[in-house]
Amino acid sequence: MKRIYLDHAATTPTHPEVVEAMLPYFTDAFGNPSSPHSLGQEAKAAVEEARDKIAHLIGVQSEEIIFTSGGTEADNFAIQGVAYASQHKGNHIITTSIEHHAVLEPCKFLERQGFKVTYLPVDKSGLVDPEEIKKAITNKTILISVMHANNEVGTIEPIVEIGKIAKEKEIYFHTDAVQTVGHIPMNVDEFEVDLLAMSAHKLYGPKGIGALYVRQGTRITPFMHGGGQERGRRASTENVPAIVGFGTAAEIAQREIDKEVESLIPLRDKFIQGLFKQIAQIHLNGHPWQRLPNNVNVSIEFVEGESLLISLDLEGIVASSGSACSSDALEPSHVLLALGLPGELARGSLRFSLGRGTTEEEVGRVLEVLPRIVTRLRSISPLLKSRT
Amino acid sequence: MKRIYLDHAATTPTHPEVVEAMLPYFTDAFGNPSSPHSLGQEAKAAVEEARDKIAHLIGVQSEEIIFTSGGTEADNFAIQGVAYASQHKGNHIITTSIEHHAVLEPCKFLERQGFKVTYLPVDKSGLVDPEEIKKAITNKTILISVMHANNEVGTIEPIVEIGKIAKEKEIYFHTDAVQTVGHIPMNVDEFEVDLLAMSAHKLYGPKGIGALYVRQGTRITPFMHGGGQERGRRASTENVPAIVGFGTAAEIAQREIDKEVESLIPLRDKFIQGLFKQIAQIHLNGHPWQRLPNNVNVSIEFVEGESLLISLDLEGIVASSGSACSSDALEPSHVLLALGLPGELARGSLRFSLGRGTTEEEVGRVLEVLPRIVTRLRSISPLLKSRT
Repeated sequence: MKRIYLDHAATTPTHPEVVEAMLPYFTDAFGNPSSPHSLGQEAKAAVEEARDKIAHLIGVQSEEIIFTSGGTEADNFAIQGVAYASQHKGNHIITTSIEHHAVLEPCKFLERQGFKVTYLPVDKSGLVDPEEIKKAITNKTILISVMHANNEVGTIEPIVEIGKIAKEKEIYFHTDAVQTVGHIPMNVDEFEVDLLAMSAHKLYGPKGIGALYVRQGTRITPFMHGGGQERGRRASTENVPAIVGFGTAAEIAQREIDKEVESLIPLRDKFIQGLFKQIAQIHLNGHPWQRLPNNVNVSIEFVEGESLLISLDLEGIVASSGSACSSDALEPSHVLLALGLPGELARGSLRFSLGRGTTEEEVGRVLEVLPRIVTRLRSISPLLKSRT
Repeated sequence: MKRIYLDHAATTPTHPEVVEAMLPYFTDAFGNPSSPHSLGQEAKAAVEEARDKIAHLIGVQSEEIIFTSGGTEADNFAIQGVAYASQHKGNHIITTSIEHHAVLEPCKFLERQGFKVTYLPVDKSGLVDPEEIKKAITNKTILISVMHANNEVGTIEPIVEIGKIAKEKEIYFHTDAVQTVGHIPMNVDEFEVDLLAMSAHKLYGPKGIGALYVRQGTRITPFMHGGGQERGRRASTENVPAIVGFGTAAEIAQREIDKEVESLIPLRDKFIQGLFKQIAQIHLNGHPWQRLPNNVNVSIEFVEGESLLISLDLEGIVASSGSACSSDALEPSHVLLALGLPGELARGSLRFSLGRGTTEEEVGRVLEVLPRIVTRLRSISPLLKSRT
């Protein structure tokens, strides 16, 4: 049984070209980029070449890219880094209730350290209202953090408008772009964003590497303290093979991005239409069109997302019920609850995230298998029985 | 010209078996360990197997190992994690002036957040006096951090004695063991240590992965905030291939460690004796025998370490002049200054760090080349001229 992988928002397979590019840096060009000898400098040159490729992908200067160990560190760095660097100016942060935990949890940590955080609500499609952000700003506000696109429901936030507000009020603006970099063409300059978090393994690069874009002139305290790597902005020996892999993944993304968007949007919409045609009492989560090209998130009444997931898995179909980072927990997703879904519907949610290689046949196979699973699960559902 | 690599303290080549073990986790078993589906669980099982191997290497329980992005994060996590978790009890930390920047810098950061830090001096061999630690303890002391072995001069610190003091006074004890794990056999239980930092790329594992040992029951605030990975103690998608590689490197280290120690100690001493025989006005830095089996650190009068390094590099010999993490800076090493070396001697220092594969022939070649380089550099040295 060939596996159908539709969990690209959780992680992507590393592209074979990426692995190929990484290999020499494990065993041959293995130097420490901080070493002044030739072996170290060879590694350093590879790091800088990768930095250029990533900068190019999002339309920024290479010096504005700081490598991190992933999206979580990039978000932690952005939020804590700005908070500590600006604590003499104010202690108020504005974010939304649907951010990734990598944003929400550093905010909660900072609250315990005396900072104040406003968690703005979103509408039922997952959109935050820029007017609400404007209203939440006080003279103590030092940072606004709103994600580019939500990892669970795929809603794309109005970050251009938010960026304008932030700029006008001279407040730093951070966006978690882990789900969009390499998937939606972007020129970061158009966003008026000061900090932007990325993760390589969401764009066919390796795990364990990410980056934070920090606009020139942004005051930020380091998150990882130690050696003088990354121009003193992020300590720790550079993860050279992974950085090289990230650079290659960025290069491939730049090459593939338009094709990816063009093919995924119709495929996504066909998928959604098929689901609605075949399954009764189903609801689309997230914004109908202002959403990630690869995201299909639905709630199916009278079934548990976990049971759907397991049944699909047995059929070789890999999907998700909420965010991979918290699906251990079996709690209903904080994002779906913030959209106003009752707990029952939130628990009956299923996320399919398509990838570059997803085919019509694969989607067709899901549309064939899933309705059958739903029917079977509903027939034994205590949720349904309690209603009848 | 075959390269002679004697900079193993900066980084080691990834062992080919390690790379081999990692490969399937990039492209095939690429799941996110937080995903409940089979692909995710396959990755999770690999992570747990690696955790077991690392725990076994240092003689602790698997649940006491938390993966990090490297030694720097492990040190940051230990120090800030204990500081924040114990801030209701006290705000005083004791460390030494020869710690790695990954310990010193988080301490400085905490000082700016209201904590107090005592940086103890060391003697001229680099040893900290446990009696001095005892004297520095106040009723506000929450953490003692002393490295297991110094990365520059190789001195092995009396952490057994320090551990006993810490235990008696009920103060947490952290040790940076980045230079010793996998190189010196250890049973962490014998150390009375509560937190111990490791880095895979120092023991023939990949860069970008490390771990913090946290003794069961130790109160620690997470450093990376986000998803619930690592039992809620360290957020961020697990770096599966690198974790698997770290596990394999630990397994190989366990197999090789006795042989490594037995072969390196006599080779190191032969190297030191050879240097003293061939080069006049040379000084050994660090403790004469209480030192890492692979460390040779000398100061050579009337020459610059940087010039020596470049000349050696041209001859295919890779060494270091101080710590790789700060050798960018061209400042004299804070470690050598703390040992009482005058700036001139600190600048004329050279570190050779041997590895598992280092041969007598390689050492012989350095003993042949280096005296020649020293003679040439001294003949044009402004340092020497100013004396004559």
